[in-house]
Amino acid sequence: MNFIAQALNLSKSAAGRLEERNILRKAFVRHPFFADIEEAFRFEKKFGQYEEGTIVIKAKDSLKVFRGFPKIRRALLLDPTIKKHFGDREVVLEEKMNGYNVRIVKVGDNLYAITRRGLICPYTTEKARTLIDDEFFRDYPDYMLCCEAVGRASPYVPTDVYGIETLEFFLFDVREGKTNQPVTIDEKKEIAEKYGFRLAEILETVSSDDVARIKEVVEKLNKNRREGVVFKDREMVLNPLKYTTSYANQSDLRYAFRFFGEYGRDFMLSRVIREAFQSFEFEEGEEDFNQRCLRLGRAILEPMIESIRECKRGEMVCEESELVFESPDVLELFKLHMKLLGVDFRIEVLDGGRVKLKRIMRSTSDRIRGILQGSTWR
Amino acid sequence: MNFIAQALNLSKSAAGRLEERNILRKAFVRHPFFADIEEAFRFEKKFGQYEEGTIVIKAKDSLKVFRGFPKIRRALLLDPTIKKHFGDREVVLEEKMNGYNVRIVKVGDNLYAITRRGLICPYTTEKARTLIDDEFFRDYPDYMLCCEAVGRASPYVPTDVYGIETLEFFLFDVREGKTNQPVTIDEKKEIAEKYGFRLAEILETVSSDDVARIKEVVEKLNKNRREGVVFKDREMVLNPLKYTTSYANQSDLRYAFRFFGEYGRDFMLSRVIREAFQSFEFEEGEEDFNQRCLRLGRAILEPMIESIRECKRGEMVCEESELVFESPDVLELFKLHMKLLGVDFRIEVLDGGRVKLKRIMRSTSDRIRGILQGSTWR
Repeated sequence: MNFIAQALNLSKSAAGRLEERNILRKAFVRHPFFADIEEAFRFEKKFGQYEEGTIVIKAKDSLKVFRGFPKIRRALLLDPTIKKHFGDREVVLEEKMNGYNVRIVKVGDNLYAITRRGLICPYTTEKARTLIDDEFFRDYPDYMLCCEAVGRASPYVPTDVYGIETLEFFLFDVREGKTNQPVTIDEKKEIAEKYGFRLAEILETVSSDDVARIKEVVEKLNKNRREGVVFKDREMVLNPLKYTTSYANQSDLRYAFRFFGEYGRDFMLSRVIREAFQSFEFEEGEEDFNQRCLRLGRAILEPMIESIRECKRGEMVCEESELVFESPDVLELFKLHMKLLGVDFRIEVLDGGRVKLKRIMRSTSDRIRGILQGSTWR
Repeated sequence: MNFIAQALNLSKSAAGRLEERNILRKAFVRHPFFADIEEAFRFEKKFGQYEEGTIVIKAKDSLKVFRGFPKIRRALLLDPTIKKHFGDREVVLEEKMNGYNVRIVKVGDNLYAITRRGLICPYTTEKARTLIDDEFFRDYPDYMLCCEAVGRASPYVPTDVYGIETLEFFLFDVREGKTNQPVTIDEKKEIAEKYGFRLAEILETVSSDDVARIKEVVEKLNKNRREGVVFKDREMVLNPLKYTTSYANQSDLRYAFRFFGEYGRDFMLSRVIREAFQSFEFEEGEEDFNQRCLRLGRAILEPMIESIRECKRGEMVCEESELVFESPDVLELFKLHMKLLGVDFRIEVLDGGRVKLKRIMRSTSDRIRGILQGSTWR
């Protein structure tokens, strides 16, 4: 682990603490597809200034640090939170897309895609090498393209909402790997234009007290089954804030309650708290409020009952997605990657490089099966 | 603490472990109203065979042990759980009432009421001394009357459902204090008749596979806004099981979400899991299912929004109840008791011995206030 202390410029005592706290984890599966990388470790937790998901890579001829993507705090009320946070600065509203966060970087001769937790994902890396022009990295060798990976062919967050059959990258931040320093919104736009990246849509630029306009944007996104907004300081000096639509809160709940054995209680409570504050702030009429309550009740009960029915039929509760691989080698590597993640899964190979990935939700399945067989509950 | 080891007949090493694990807590506030008791400690957790809530009392001339009321496991599905648990034995359906569990015992010359956690509650003790004929204890000096304390004038679980303006006791178990051995259902009925105790209603005695009849009982209770059923072995050899109505699940949620800062995530998840299994088992039509979902959504959002509105008006979120004291001394003692419990409260004295008790829910209030002032959320 010597190279980590060296890459991060840690003092001896800091390096000792890092070891003691035991927060370093393997970040990749060694494989010719990852030819440029000799070793790589990720931070499972925050350590000092280094965010969870920070990765340190020992390449053939260099050491690289890519910082974890910072947590974005949330506004539960638009008013007065946006004003309080941004003061007199211009606020840019960007669409918050529903996919998974990846940092695309260059190491040696190739691109690599790093997930939120700091793992190098073979599937996403393959897509990045196909879809992303690496010209950008000649000019910005140590930068990260922070993108949302979105579409139906997603191993982590499959979604139909955007009409994307496979997987695409939407750029939302450009950051220096070692410092996590972002470029301004205007620079990001220039970069996207120059190198041909798709941007997460910039919806508006507003004054921080124009809550009426912000509400309109949120309501429109909600109607279109979109996830929400990230509010950004145009200069990227202040940290961003996020805000989600009712559609997103409720579809998160739908997901969590289908796999209630796996997904945390915290997860559930936080979503209904969002709904309550939104309902309070948007001052909806009785009819709209009833609709929200009905949707909420359904988002909770329907997926649970669906899972119970599956177990009743003798099936395991699974999350399914369909992926498309360019190369069979990468598929094999991806299986090893899923094992590294500790995921319990089955893969069915279809035609044309397509595979069906089933993540087995054992905790939910086991609990339901026990109850169906007459077990009591504490 | 020597008297505890002596009362429980603990070996030296067991006594050492008890000390080490630090699970003994003060069980009462010393006061002339509790004249018979010199010292009393309760078990905050299970220890060996001793249930959480077990209390050991040093009286003037004796040592007394009253075991904690055993946890009753729950059926999430009636079929096949009841059959699996009770096999060929006769199953007695008792109404599970919505109040708080107290064990009424005699120590020295007086009655004492012990709450679930093992505290001697002055308010409940005062009511027990007024309402319970202590003749029973001449015949059964070391037994406990396990009762549900129910009514509007309840410091812990105030309810209107039973039409009881003050507080009444409903006997559901008679147990030997030291062994926790219950008497049979038939003996309990005889005791209630002989000494004039009100029983928690015995609704039916059924065969363990008569799920259709059990469902009818549950549905009727649900319509009458009742809490649920406790299933008991007529001989009280097997442990009881419990099952709650949708009304109870949802009113629990209503309570928990009003005080979402205080009440555990576990609490919430378990209630919706009950609703899901019940909806699955009762095979309701679409209309009924939608009604259940709407009620569930409302049970979650309405109380949260109510709490937000209260904070918006500058109030603290509180739980209110109205109590009636026979003696001003007991009121003073009750205040000390609430402090021992760590409850943040205000008391307003009304007329005729009545007081208004407000429990202040600081965590919920503080979190909401922060958000109303523009704080962000993790």
